[in-house]
Formats: sequence, C-alpha cells, structure tokens
Amino acid sequence: MCESVNLRAAEIVKRMLCEPEHYRIELHNVKGAKIVDAGVFSTGNASAGILVTEICLGGLGRASLIHQRFGEEYLPSIFVETWNPPIATLGSQYAGWQIKTSDYFAMGSGPARALALKPKTIYEKIGYKDEAKEAVIVLESDKLPTEEAVEYICEECEVEPSNLYVAVTPTTSLAGSIQISGRVVETGIHKLTELGLDPKSIIFGCGYAPVPPVHPNQAKAMGRTNDAILYGGATYYTVIHEDDETLRRIVVQAPSSSSKDYGRPFYEIIKEVKFDFYKVDPNLFAPAYVAVTNVKTGRTYTSGRIDETLVQNMLGISRV
Amino acid sequence: MCESVNLRAAEIVKRMLCEPEHYRIELHNVKGAKIVDAGVFSTGNASAGILVTEICLGGLGRASLIHQRFGEEYLPSIFVETWNPPIATLGSQYAGWQIKTSDYFAMGSGPARALALKPKTIYEKIGYKDEAKEAVIVLESDKLPTEEAVEYICEECEVEPSNLYVAVTPTTSLAGSIQISGRVVETGIHKLTELGLDPKSIIFGCGYAPVPPVHPNQAKAMGRTNDAILYGGATYYTVIHEDDETLRRIVVQAPSSSSKDYGRPFYEIIKEVKFDFYKVDPNLFAPAYVAVTNVKTGRTYTSGRIDETLVQNMLGISRV
Amino acid sequence: MCESVNLRAAEIVKRMLCEPEHYRIELHNVKGAKIVDAGVFSTGNASAGILVTEICLGGLGRASLIHQRFGEEYLPSIFVETWNPPIATLGSQYAGWQIKTSDYFAMGSGPARALALKPKTIYEKIGYKDEAKEAVIVLESDKLPTEEAVEYICEECEVEPSNLYVAVTPTTSLAGSIQISGRVVETGIHKLTELGLDPKSIIFGCGYAPVPPVHPNQAKAMGRTNDAILYGGATYYTVIHEDDETLRRIVVQAPSSSSKDYGRPFYEIIKEVKFDFYKVDPNLFAPAYVAVTNVKTGRTYTSGRIDETLVQNMLGISRV
Repeated sequence: MCESVNLRAAEIVKRMLCEPEHYRIELHNVKGAKIVDAGVFSTGNASAGILVTEICLGGLGRASLIHQRFGEEYLPSIFVETWNPPIATLGSQYAGWQIKTSDYFAMGSGPARALALKPKTIYEKIGYKDEAKEAVIVLESDKLPTEEAVEYICEECEVEPSNLYVAVTPTTSLAGSIQISGRVVETGIHKLTELGLDPKSIIFGCGYAPVPPVHPNQAKAMGRTNDAILYGGATYYTVIHEDDETLRRIVVQAPSSSSKDYGRPFYEIIKEVKFDFYKVDPNLFAPAYVAVTNVKTGRTYTSGRIDETLVQNMLGISRV
Repeated sequence: MCESVNLRAAEIVKRMLCEPEHYRIELHNVKGAKIVDAGVFSTGNASAGILVTEICLGGLGRASLIHQRFGEEYLPSIFVETWNPPIATLGSQYAGWQIKTSDYFAMGSGPARALALKPKTIYEKIGYKDEAKEAVIVLESDKLPTEEAVEYICEECEVEPSNLYVAVTPTTSLAGSIQISGRVVETGIHKLTELGLDPKSIIFGCGYAPVPPVHPNQAKAMGRTNDAILYGGATYYTVIHEDDETLRRIVVQAPSSSSKDYGRPFYEIIKEVKFDFYKVDPNLFAPAYVAVTNVKTGRTYTSGRIDETLVQNMLGISRV
Repeated sequence: MCESVNLRAAEIVKRMLCEPEHYRIELHNVKGAKIVDAGVFSTGNASAGILVTEICLGGLGRASLIHQRFGEEYLPSIFVETWNPPIATLGSQYAGWQIKTSDYFAMGSGPARALALKPKTIYEKIGYKDEAKEAVIVLESDKLPTEEAVEYICEECEVEPSNLYVAVTPTTSLAGSIQISGRVVETGIHKLTELGLDPKSIIFGCGYAPVPPVHPNQAKAMGRTNDAILYGGATYYTVIHEDDETLRRIVVQAPSSSSKDYGRPFYEIIKEVKFDFYKVDPNLFAPAYVAVTNVKTGRTYTSGRIDETLVQNMLGISRV
C-alpha cells in the first residue's frame, strides 16, 4: 500500500531539469549528485517554488498560487492540498533532518528523509518507510551542499550519488518564500500530532497562507515565513477519531493563538531566545486557523482566526 | 459537432486505474466490468473525488479544490467550470438514472446516461446522444453493483461488460462528498431548465460550493450535500437569450431561496416527507446564488445569496 | 538564457487544434497560414479563452478561471501568474502591433511581436528578441485576417505562411472577454514602466480581474473589458529595486485611481474623445489595486482598491 515519495518527487525534479531556463534554475554537479539551484546563484522563479513544494510533499499533494484578500490588501498565497497527509507532510515535507558536516549546515526536508528515517520516531508513528534507489532532498540554505554533505546524505539514504537530487532554496529567495509558506498544512499536522492526535488518522488536509514578501535579511526572511503561517494561515483536516470530546480539546489548542507568544513578530521572539528554536514555545508553530472534521461523527471543530492587521504589519506591507 | 462524453470520461478512469494506490481506490471485476471502488471497501481520497467529478462531467468540465471563506470559517470547496454546459451537466452529470434490479439500487449519473438515454426527454431537449463502444457510469451507493446490475447497465448502454467502467462513491465517503457538492453548476442548470430556459442556450457555467464535512449517517450525509449547494453554492452562467424580461423573471426564481422550504436543513425536510424526493418542493433544488449573463444584450441578472450562518449550522461546524 | 515565446505558444495552439470541437473553434486556411477562429464564425468557449491568454503570455505564464466575490456578487474572474513578467507581458501579451492593410485592421498581440519587434523600443527596454521559425499572433477582431494581412504579418516576422498561427477573438465573444481581462497583470506592468520602473527588474507578477459579461456592442464590450481591469483588477509584483523612496512614489501613481477620469465607465470616456485611445489619460490604464514588493529591502507598497459598486454598475449587473 506504500508509494515511493522519492520516485514521485524525482519525476518532478526531472521535469524541471528539462527546462532549467524556464524555471530560472541551474544544475550543478557535486560528486555526481544533481544539485538543483533555485535561488543561490540562479534566480529561481515562482514556478520553481511551486514545484519544490510538490517535491517536498513527495508528489502526494498539489500546490498552486492563488490571490487572497487580507483586509484591504490582496496578496499571492499558496494553496496546498494533500490526499495522504501523514506521509506527504510528516513523512516528507517536515524539515526534520539537520544536514550538518564539518563544512556545511542546512535544514533538510522532503522525501529523502523517508529513506534515512530522520527522525526515526516519526516514521514509527506513521508506519512508513521508502526503499527507492533514488533520493530527493530539499535544503533551505543560501549555499550549495559540499562534497562532504552530499556523501553524508547518500550514506544515510543508501543511494549512489548519481541517484541523489538536491533542491536548494534560500530563505531569502522567491522560490524559498513560496516553498516555506507551502508548509502551512504540515505545520498544523505537526502541532495536532504534538497535541496527541494520531497522524495516521488524518485522511485529508488542505490550507493556504500568504506568500511572504521576500526579505534580504535571512533571519528576518525566516521570521516572515513563520509569521505568514502563524497569523495568515488557514487549514482544514479530515480525520477518523473515536472520541469527539478529546478531538474538540485538541482543536481548541491547535491554532497559534494558543501560545503565550501569539501576536508578536516571530523574528522578535526568536531573537529574544538567541535564535535557539528549541526555546520557542512549541505551541506557537501552527496555522492561525484550524478546522477538523471527524468522519466518525460528522462534527467539525474550528478554532483561531486569520488576523489581517497582523499579516499586514508583520509582512512589511505599507499602504501608500 | 458531438464529442463522446464516454470516451473522454474513460480516459480519466484509465488514468486513475494506473495508480489505484495513489487514489486509494480498488479495482473489482463484476462479470468483466471494471468496478472502481472509491469509498466502499477502499478509502477513496480527495483526489479521487475530484476526478470522479470530472468523469461525471464527461470530460467537458474541470473541477478543483479551493479554500473559501464563509463568515468566520474557512472551508474546502469545489470549483467547477464547464464550457459545454448542457451536455456536461444535463447530458452527463445529472443523477437521472435509477439503477434498480432485484438485488441492487443506486442513483446513476455520468456519461453512460447519454448511451442509454436516461431520461429520453433530456436528450431530446439538449439534442445529444453518445454512440461510443465504452460506457462510464458513476453510482452513489455504499454497495458495489451486482452481476444483475452490471448486466442491466450493459444492455441499456449496448456495450460489452468488458467495456463498462463503474465508479462507486458512497454518500458517506470523502470522494462522495466532493463529487456530490461538485454538482452545484448542474443543479442550477436543472432549475433554470425547469423554469423554462432552453439548456442549449447556456454556453458557459461555473460555480462553487463548500465540500460538506463527511457524515457517517447516510441520510444525514445526503442532507448535508444538499445543504452545501442550497445554502453555500454560487453559480454563474452565460446564455444566449432573446428576451431580457423573461430571463430576468427566470433568474428571480432561480436560487433556492425561492422555495418555501428555504432555511431549513434538507435532512429535516426530506424526513418530513418520509424520504420521498418527489414530495420535496422542486424549487428548493438550486444553488444559493445564481447569476446569468445574456450575451444578446450584455445584461447580467443575479439573485440569492450565500448564507454563511446557515452553512455553518447545517454542516455541523462548531467554533471551540 | 532566452526561451522562444513563439515555440512555447505554438505548442498550445497545436494542442487546441487537436480538438477543435472541444474548444468550439474552427480552423481556416488563409494563404497557408493556420487561422484559429475562436468567436468569429465559431462560438469559441471559455477554455479556448484561457488558452488564448496563455498563448498571449508566450507560454511564460498560467491563466485560470476562479470565482471571486465582489460585494454581494460572485463573478468568474481570471487569475494570471507569470514567472517571467517582462517577456511574457511587454514582450508578448501587450497589444502593441497594429495590423493594418488596405483591407484589414486589428490590434495584434502575442509572441509574433517578438519576431517583428513591434514596437522596437519595448524590445530594447526588455532586451529580448525571438528568432523562431514559427510565429503565433492573437488578433482582437470580429473578422478573419485577409490574405494581405497574412502576407504582411509573415513578412514582418520573417516566417513562411505555413508556419504562422493566428488566433482571432472578437471583443464581443466569450473567449475575447476572457483573454482581454487576462491582461490585468500586463496592464499594471505597462503603467509601472511608464512611471519609470525598469521592466527587467520585475521578477514575478500575478493578479486577477473579473471576466466582464459579454456585450454584443463592440465599443461597449471594449469599454467593459477595460472597466473590469480599472475597477476590479488586483495585481502583485516582485521587483529588484535600489531605492525604496522612488519605488514608493511609483506605486502611489500605479493604480487607475491616479487618473482624473477614474470612476467613470471607460465607454463614456473613450466616446468623449471620439474613440481615439491616444487622447485618453494614460494614467487610467492600470489595475484598481497594485502591490509591489522590493526584494532588496523587503518592503511592500500597496495602493488603490477594488471598488465593488463600480464593478457591479459598469459590468451591467442587476440584482433582481
């Protein structure tokens, strides 16, 4: 019953590589691995950002640009749907693998994680494991991976370098901005799972978040990509659950507003704790609005709201 | 000038059958006919629901998931567009064929109707008839068709069982919920036709409705799929009409609010008449909002409105 | 680094020509050139209108129908995104080539302009020139091009007639209505360029406008397609700019509301100047709302607003 997220994602990468110029990407070769640069030396356009999002989802979801109203403003937003939420999000899109060698550091996400089982606990929870001979990883970084980094990834995934595809998008690039806000549905699932929901019970998920305007400063760009989800993201999930009262209590806590830090720019919050993610209240990492339908009872619980003023302020938008 | 809705739909079914696991469908064989189970023994995911909608439209329309705001709530909705409204909706999507044998009952919709001419009056009205050697039918049921049912369908369509494709979606499934709310544009056309508009005069139609949260009880699930359209559906049509005043009068009556039963849950209404559809006020079966443009004069008439509170209440949505 | 907009567009035309009946188009042959009639003798449906929009964009953008709320009304709208804005819009979609022979007149747009370099100044500004052996042009007209017109186009593009594709959509047709409102992103870029922004600095653009209800009178239909953009269009651009203050001042002037003629139906304005486009205040030709992000500083400036009452009045929409 288990499709390979790596094989599905590899198909998308190969499609991009047929038209590098069209996507404004560059192909680099590091020890035989194919490095798809979508914003480091290249520009990497919006279409590349959408496809990198679908690569992250292991081909088990779709992403598209939409235009959404936020109060007086109209902003491009990314709409994401996945029909296999646990594998597409926790098993693939979640940025849960630190690629750390003597000469390189980046957060790794995407299907390759399902080969290397990073982190193992997640794959035990969702009962999934890929065994493809090709690996696809997405790195959020402004540097291309080094030889050592490529070797490390290949070893962990047990693939030949020639079968490794690495997509690199900086946080400060257009493609990066799109693919990070494209994590809105995943962010909600991660939080729901932390609150005790079995991710395997989630049979459908969709949602959207504004594409945060690109910022040249990496820490501030990272702050915005979080703000876009925390204050501007709306998600919906369909789950199979035996007990409505437990589910209701989970949904109460699900949106970002359940955190004491809600309402402040993420950049300020993370700066206060010296950029140590583990010191940020984990309750904050969630969409602004969460709705969950229980197919066992037909009830839907919703919580949180999109705050249009916060979106406008935090994304640096000025009416002139 | 007449494309085959069956051949177009068969292409979509075949695409689904290449990746059963991806769509969470199962292929069954009943007397040689290919039965695509999208929610009976299988789960049938949202992507399957979208494709079943496009199958219903005979490949003459497109369906996609969107995320729509309804007051304080944000719900996944289905957007449908058809560039050949009479054939795609009345000639194919309309659930106008009762598949009734000694051991089986289901409402049949989709392109096969255009082979069996069920009901004949509709095909006379729209001047269409398919002659393909392949047939595709969609059954709203929680049971797979029996051998007798398959034989009956083949006889009426004059196709070999090996050339028959049957997609089955229960009302209580995710794919069912999606494909039924995907009938919002068709529902409006059916009502406009009842009010005297020539369906052949409709050259374009589009619209959306919230995807009703799945309910485990069949009658209640059916109630919700109706409520989604009656209270949350908006549609737009382009027509060629000689007389604006007549058209204006038709549009006044077009939305569901023209019915005396408007405002109550469909489940309550149908229960009152002991689940006899023919006793429900036919004026009720319509989208909440209807807009019609007359290309002969350039005028657009609109009537009705989406009622966000009714949507929330009837779809069982609780703010927590 | 330069893709051929003509080759990309030709692929789309060829796809349409595989299914003329599906798109309700007709293929005519004028001196060996392939004339795609999408609304002159044929009906030309909405799907054809969307594809003609993508042809206009030289395959460097995507167009799709959406359903958008405007106050109390819900109207089909066209959403357009382009990941290569200068070439897709100024270099291709912009209606900047008058096709004028002794027996024919039409405004020409689309990729063929990038072969004929019409007007040359634009191609110098964007630094692009196509050299394909196939040419694709879109004509807004209710007449098919004459032999003389075809000869003229071929000479200017330096292509053989057998390699010329001409798509014709009347202003008063459904496909025409769609493809003209599909110029909303281009209209904004044209105005921004007039205000001094370097079009090459624009790396992303998206936006939407209501599809104006078709009007049988050509001048009035043309008025509406303009009103749809001027009063109902919203656009967003990402640019690389060195100076925020200059950019801010440009954005202040960017929307249609900066014109003294803002607020009146375009038909009235153009009638007053005897249908001489060059006498209309050029500031008027712009979307209702414009947002611009500067990736160099992370700031976003926005100006203007969608006026739902004006949209309703000018597009001839009556609540009944």
